[in-house]
Amino acid sequence: MSDVNQVWRLRKRPVGEIADDVLSLEKETVPEPAEGQFLFRMNYLSLDPTNRIWMSDMDQYMPPVALNDPMRGVVCGTVVKSRHPDFAAGDVVSGLGVWADYQLGTPATMGKMQTPPGVSVADAFGLFAVVGPTAYFGLLDLSEPKAGETVVVSAAAGAVGSIVGQIARIKGCRAVGLAGTNAKCKWIVEELGFDAAINYKKENVAEALKRACPKGIDVYFDNVGGDILDACFKQMNLGGRIPTCGLISQYNATGEVPGPRNYPMILMQRLKVQGFIVLDFAHRYPEAIMALGQWMQEGKLKFKVDMYEGMESAVKTLRRLYTGDHTGKLMLHVG
Amino acid sequence: MSDVNQVWRLRKRPVGEIADDVLSLEKETVPEPAEGQFLFRMNYLSLDPTNRIWMSDMDQYMPPVALNDPMRGVVCGTVVKSRHPDFAAGDVVSGLGVWADYQLGTPATMGKMQTPPGVSVADAFGLFAVVGPTAYFGLLDLSEPKAGETVVVSAAAGAVGSIVGQIARIKGCRAVGLAGTNAKCKWIVEELGFDAAINYKKENVAEALKRACPKGIDVYFDNVGGDILDACFKQMNLGGRIPTCGLISQYNATGEVPGPRNYPMILMQRLKVQGFIVLDFAHRYPEAIMALGQWMQEGKLKFKVDMYEGMESAVKTLRRLYTGDHTGKLMLHVG
Repeated sequence: MSDVNQVWRLRKRPVGEIADDVLSLEKETVPEPAEGQFLFRMNYLSLDPTNRIWMSDMDQYMPPVALNDPMRGVVCGTVVKSRHPDFAAGDVVSGLGVWADYQLGTPATMGKMQTPPGVSVADAFGLFAVVGPTAYFGLLDLSEPKAGETVVVSAAAGAVGSIVGQIARIKGCRAVGLAGTNAKCKWIVEELGFDAAINYKKENVAEALKRACPKGIDVYFDNVGGDILDACFKQMNLGGRIPTCGLISQYNATGEVPGPRNYPMILMQRLKVQGFIVLDFAHRYPEAIMALGQWMQEGKLKFKVDMYEGMESAVKTLRRLYTGDHTGKLMLHVG
Repeated sequence: MSDVNQVWRLRKRPVGEIADDVLSLEKETVPEPAEGQFLFRMNYLSLDPTNRIWMSDMDQYMPPVALNDPMRGVVCGTVVKSRHPDFAAGDVVSGLGVWADYQLGTPATMGKMQTPPGVSVADAFGLFAVVGPTAYFGLLDLSEPKAGETVVVSAAAGAVGSIVGQIARIKGCRAVGLAGTNAKCKWIVEELGFDAAINYKKENVAEALKRACPKGIDVYFDNVGGDILDACFKQMNLGGRIPTCGLISQYNATGEVPGPRNYPMILMQRLKVQGFIVLDFAHRYPEAIMALGQWMQEGKLKFKVDMYEGMESAVKTLRRLYTGDHTGKLMLHVG
């Protein structure tokens, strides 16, 4: 164990893209656990769209990270020293931590990882910590898709989107994904089994949706907001559902972002639009993990980790989320 | 019975306000009922915000009225001749008809009116046909308000809005209404028992909402869309609900209407926004009528009909909906 701790601290609120001076990587001392705490070494850092929200001083679902505080993140690590009776050195833990090599944890924010046999820690962390339950509860609880319905998902080659489409298929729905490169479109159709894919950067999205969804859209799982949301609104069927998981198209906006012009479709088609975060379903995680694990073992669900290396790469890697320069679950391996 | 039938026919799609040449009043012959139909004389015509939608060639929840067809409306009348075994001359009926003195009905669109003792036909038609069930199901089913929560309603001195606020009070909520004149604001507070009212034409809505809703907004019952929706979005509490009943602020728009800028609050506060029309709850009408009737008898619910006279006034009267020049349920008495 090193006695130098690398910690990313938030120095500025980002404006537009995350510039180099928004976070700084500091060398600090490794903290000592107090009674009831444990010290763990971070092994994997999950990079998620919501990280950009936490950096910003905007209305959001938890307080933003305070300036000069360590950056918040979903992390996985190994306990090195414990003063909590339920945790011992060597335990693998995951939860809500910070971007630091060494950090303190308590059961309030960190729990022991359950890793099914034959699944790597990285895969289990990537799929079960946030992404899988987000897709599972967002799709199944908020939109209750029925066999034969059409489910459209944006950021479909991303971590959550790729799972949403596969669960839709498992439930007997037609799954249509939007992604930003031909390679991603090919991947979600040929590898993941989506029924159709739309390259939203190359195609006219409204026309492509009409072709891909001949019976209209029953569920639009929204990860992006913006123009894609507006195009989907226009083709929603009566009683359609729009679980709202993310609005990544506008997180980096510098000016005011216009609202969706086709909002009146909520009234005209009696739609249900509902925002959620996965923490709303924390008490039901075991159900999601069991279902996702079983689908994986049956070969019905594929999951891809897009792994990068080294603490110093954290910001550079995070930027890939907003440029679309990744496929699957974006993660950083450290230590 | 006259042998001349006055019929309002749709001649043009309206652009902006409903101009004089959008509908024309024709003198026609009274139709003869075929087997299974009955002929009725319209007594009351309900004038509703949705009438403007039916005139327009836009996406909507039922087909628009075809050009040159009689204008569609919610009507109440008296059977004068019947060739249906369940209906007889003298029966009072209500349902979805047209703007005509005499018209044909079947049980598919018209039913016999239930008028509780001591309630006039006009009041029963005004409250039970559309307005009351709309307020009842929209508020109670879609938003499930809990005692102590804050319910905000727009167009609060209108037919649906005035009932929504009173039901909110009956359920133990704080009721806050937005209306467009001081007289309307005074009426909903002093006569109907709202906790607070905001004159959205005179006051800064965001600041007034902060004062009137010190604990934030749990339910915003949306009748209007536009700037008021955006202001409410910004002050919604976690887990808030927005039943979407109407978007009247934009029905008469001629240009493109911007979407709500604060749409991201759906994600940040995990809101549920849901559109509905009362026909979705047709099978549960008796429940609403029973509850509303009982509240009226107990003096907990007040209902005001704003009645105008004569077929020739139909269009002029309808325009009052969009100019805000009415209080309570707008209706026309004919015949």
